[in-house]
Amino acid sequence: MEDLAALSKAHTELVHSIDTVWVAICAALIFQMEGGFALLEAGFVRSKNSVSIIAKVMIDIMFGGIAFYAVGFGIAYGESNGWGAFGVGIPSQDLGLGLTISNTLFWFIQMGFAVAAISIVSGAMAERMKIWAYAIYVTIFVAVLYPFAANWVWNPKGWLCTMGFNDFAGSSAVHAMGGFAALAGAMILGPRIGKYNADGSINPIPGHNLTLSAVGAFILWFGWFGFNPGSTLAAVGKWELIGSVATNTFLASAAGGISTMIYTQFWYKKVDITMVINGVLAGLVAITAGCNVVSPNSAILIGLVAGVLVDVAVVTIDKMKIDDPVGAIAVHGVNGLFGTIAVGLFSTKGGLFTTGNATLLGVQTMGVLAIGLFSFLTSFGVLTLMNKFMGIRVTRIEESAGIDTVEYGIEAYSTFE
Amino acid sequence: MEDLAALSKAHTELVHSIDTVWVAICAALIFQMEGGFALLEAGFVRSKNSVSIIAKVMIDIMFGGIAFYAVGFGIAYGESNGWGAFGVGIPSQDLGLGLTISNTLFWFIQMGFAVAAISIVSGAMAERMKIWAYAIYVTIFVAVLYPFAANWVWNPKGWLCTMGFNDFAGSSAVHAMGGFAALAGAMILGPRIGKYNADGSINPIPGHNLTLSAVGAFILWFGWFGFNPGSTLAAVGKWELIGSVATNTFLASAAGGISTMIYTQFWYKKVDITMVINGVLAGLVAITAGCNVVSPNSAILIGLVAGVLVDVAVVTIDKMKIDDPVGAIAVHGVNGLFGTIAVGLFSTKGGLFTTGNATLLGVQTMGVLAIGLFSFLTSFGVLTLMNKFMGIRVTRIEESAGIDTVEYGIEAYSTFE
Amino acid sequence: MEDLAALSKAHTELVHSIDTVWVAICAALIFQMEGGFALLEAGFVRSKNSVSIIAKVMIDIMFGGIAFYAVGFGIAYGESNGWGAFGVGIPSQDLGLGLTISNTLFWFIQMGFAVAAISIVSGAMAERMKIWAYAIYVTIFVAVLYPFAANWVWNPKGWLCTMGFNDFAGSSAVHAMGGFAALAGAMILGPRIGKYNADGSINPIPGHNLTLSAVGAFILWFGWFGFNPGSTLAAVGKWELIGSVATNTFLASAAGGISTMIYTQFWYKKVDITMVINGVLAGLVAITAGCNVVSPNSAILIGLVAGVLVDVAVVTIDKMKIDDPVGAIAVHGVNGLFGTIAVGLFSTKGGLFTTGNATLLGVQTMGVLAIGLFSFLTSFGVLTLMNKFMGIRVTRIEESAGIDTVEYGIEAYSTFE
Repeated sequence: MEDLAALSKAHTELVHSIDTVWVAICAALIFQMEGGFALLEAGFVRSKNSVSIIAKVMIDIMFGGIAFYAVGFGIAYGESNGWGAFGVGIPSQDLGLGLTISNTLFWFIQMGFAVAAISIVSGAMAERMKIWAYAIYVTIFVAVLYPFAANWVWNPKGWLCTMGFNDFAGSSAVHAMGGFAALAGAMILGPRIGKYNADGSINPIPGHNLTLSAVGAFILWFGWFGFNPGSTLAAVGKWELIGSVATNTFLASAAGGISTMIYTQFWYKKVDITMVINGVLAGLVAITAGCNVVSPNSAILIGLVAGVLVDVAVVTIDKMKIDDPVGAIAVHGVNGLFGTIAVGLFSTKGGLFTTGNATLLGVQTMGVLAIGLFSFLTSFGVLTLMNKFMGIRVTRIEESAGIDTVEYGIEAYSTFE
Repeated sequence: MEDLAALSKAHTELVHSIDTVWVAICAALIFQMEGGFALLEAGFVRSKNSVSIIAKVMIDIMFGGIAFYAVGFGIAYGESNGWGAFGVGIPSQDLGLGLTISNTLFWFIQMGFAVAAISIVSGAMAERMKIWAYAIYVTIFVAVLYPFAANWVWNPKGWLCTMGFNDFAGSSAVHAMGGFAALAGAMILGPRIGKYNADGSINPIPGHNLTLSAVGAFILWFGWFGFNPGSTLAAVGKWELIGSVATNTFLASAAGGISTMIYTQFWYKKVDITMVINGVLAGLVAITAGCNVVSPNSAILIGLVAGVLVDVAVVTIDKMKIDDPVGAIAVHGVNGLFGTIAVGLFSTKGGLFTTGNATLLGVQTMGVLAIGLFSFLTSFGVLTLMNKFMGIRVTRIEESAGIDTVEYGIEAYSTFE
Repeated sequence: MEDLAALSKAHTELVHSIDTVWVAICAALIFQMEGGFALLEAGFVRSKNSVSIIAKVMIDIMFGGIAFYAVGFGIAYGESNGWGAFGVGIPSQDLGLGLTISNTLFWFIQMGFAVAAISIVSGAMAERMKIWAYAIYVTIFVAVLYPFAANWVWNPKGWLCTMGFNDFAGSSAVHAMGGFAALAGAMILGPRIGKYNADGSINPIPGHNLTLSAVGAFILWFGWFGFNPGSTLAAVGKWELIGSVATNTFLASAAGGISTMIYTQFWYKKVDITMVINGVLAGLVAITAGCNVVSPNSAILIGLVAGVLVDVAVVTIDKMKIDDPVGAIAVHGVNGLFGTIAVGLFSTKGGLFTTGNATLLGVQTMGVLAIGLFSFLTSFGVLTLMNKFMGIRVTRIEESAGIDTVEYGIEAYSTFE
């Protein structure tokens, strides 16, 4: 090239290109986590509802994706007064986010987060929800509920963002948002037939295919290395951050699995493999908020706590007669809460344990409670109204027969000819 | 660095590096779609043939890959007189394609497309084809049939390319090419035993494992975000295109699934989940040609049409007594055709609906018909000859017992000890 | 930008960014190979042990990952006297490896290799090892055994590295290291109950779910395109190498599958699909050492040999009454050995067949034998001691009932309600 100006311009083009490659691949990894949700949940439910739960995750993607295109993205990132503007589609003007990637690519990765949030909910409502009612709820959630959480946390004009709230990849905006909606959903739907006895005792309903759940778990684990490191939204200027985010993400997940192994061995005298899977996921959820600001050792500590928390939470939620077939509330709600607060404790930039300052801890706690409460109340309201006017639960006869047969006219496994 | 010349040279090295990272990862994503084909098809067939269909997709990769190395690549991209030259292996000289990646990497990504095309065929010929006959057919298809389609469409000297034919990632070159070969294959093999009754009625033969098919579907869906965006073959200078290609690809797939849901609910009073999977795939196939030149709203429209088209096509093909166990003809053939033509309608660069000009529509229609016809006739010829001289279908006894036992001496699922 | 200095500095930032994107994605691909190991092994064992083998691969990740963080990485790459120093965690100073990526990202990708090595062992010890004993062995292997192999081969101060030993992505350091530990493990544990009869005959114990194994195989195959090309550890300056590594990796895998198909058809009159999967993996293992220095034609030749070697090795090992349920010793041990030696034959930089010089062949042979022997002897020692002091095998009653029930209190597949 002939002069500095040309070379400088060419340099800018390279920055755009590098960041685009990084985000495009990470967005694809995040997208494929949907397969992980679907298969994890399918394995954890009974065979008779396994096809329908996969269909519901596809609904998360399809209805959620279109809703986020038509409405949600505008609320989260459109020309904003702090609450978002109701723009339709993907605006072409600069979003004021300092992006080096195109708006369409930014939309694509943000869609992945939105769809992940609602996929959390699908698990807690498994085995008893009507398919079309679910599609309507998905549309509402992704169009007008989730986008507020994203706006508050990640839009520079969002009220939590302006307060210094640190939720790097969405322990609050995605996981607590999904987890507390899951709580509302499980409460309104009520437990599956036969889950709780009149005398207060609990009948475990084991998943029908744990190797299938393992497929899902490995897909999710893999995808998290797009979910967290990809939240840098750029590689140039952030290449050191990418490495530490990936390593923190890994260490917390490993620690979460280990502490669950030890906990279940200690309390139940057996390692509970479904809980180990949930322990790994709990570690991943908990590190998602702070993976950019904690040390590797703190990441391990956060994972260890998350792995125990999820065990206690699953049992507690079950004792409260809230029937969550896949443990979504415990994994995503409880550990989204914990992970967000943990930033206030362990952050190298203002954490209580590392700096002695409690300000960040206050912001983190308030923020995640606000999002959890917002999610719970709005989903509770929406589902209550839907239940009143159209009914959201299949009939008793349909539930006994299985949703696959009733709503899909099909069974997952045909006679093994 | 000391001077402009050094910096300029270093800049060139970065361009090569960025584009290589982009294409290498996308090529890996495309390659792993083979797992998607294998598992989707395995779940959609009966248990007794599930191992053999996986083996056939492995044959697609193994024999197809070597055939594309030895012969096919030279036809598609070798020193070319417009029809390709029969070079063996990967030439080291400049291919005249304006590539910034190495020829070996270009070979690797192009091999992924070639192998995808033949994997479409494997599904339509499932449950009744001899394994070694299939291996011979795969070799012929990838060595000397598919490369002509790639040459015509993507080689700058190819006759369709010179006419302005727009098939960005292969609705014609890959999907119609595979889909119409699948039609020929299903016709020559004839239907599976017991599929059609003497009175003309049809016996549905349900797949044995829909959760396995879902694993495959999610893998394919994921891989398409390498297939389409990776067809830029570069990131530098194309970073904005990457974002819009990814978003269009997503929107069409979501719309395809939604319209199938609505269509099957409306006509059959039940959502047909196997068809929803096919609807998503149909949307993906249909947007593959035009994802670089249509607006997001057009992508949604294309997906909506594709999702209905595939439903109608599956039923129509079945009524014609053409037995396609996995719906490959409807998904890839019919929607490859539709998607290519849709470019002529919706392209922002010459589409009939957007510009009022019908020239592109004519080119698109002629091109896809040429490729479809070429594929159908050549595969029909090759398979007819093979059938005459060596026989391509297993015996009735072998078919009843299942190919897994007969040709592989194995069953997919052992007693669940 | 205003001057050359600023532009030059910006250029350096881009180099870091590009290389980081490349390695971060490849590291994620390598990590997800763990899912491949888990599902491949789960499908190849009996249903009653399928959950437990998945749990063991999770233990590989969790205990192995933390062990590599706490101890192993320091031995392999810490301030080194040629044997490694026992640093804990990830040092922040320059490691002297000429890296353009951060130490944390380098740790993350190296952890993937470490965990892959131990995952090889898990398969050979399937269906009969105690879970907590396994966790202890994993910790020891990844903390203090594997790191020596990595140090010798990849640390510039390692004794094999200084001799010009070429093991690009770890045919020796990962696969032979894992494969010969697997041999020690299978020998000390002894065969599964009922595997070998008193009269010397062998009872085949077929895997319970071959479609699940196929899921695992495709995941591994996919991941290898991060494993081998990612071993460049950079894209800038290595973009041409990335293309040829990917292509060589593919060609060898295809050739390995083809030669196994032909071999099993010829000897057993049936294509053995589980062996074809192993043939593909054998080709991948064998090309791993030399994918950076052999021609594509040599890669095909190496794959063809590997595909036959694995068939012969599986049978031979079985005849020696060494019970390896998944063929890990044959795939990774034997072909890690062969692949490393093959570099000495086919390398364009000093191979015997290409240059007539036998020096490299000598170094390669000695290196892989040293690593194989080191791995076998140390694992043999560790497991013998563990067996003596705590016992590493489940009781006969537990083994008959299945480890899933005994150690996990669970079954993979619940009644198909």
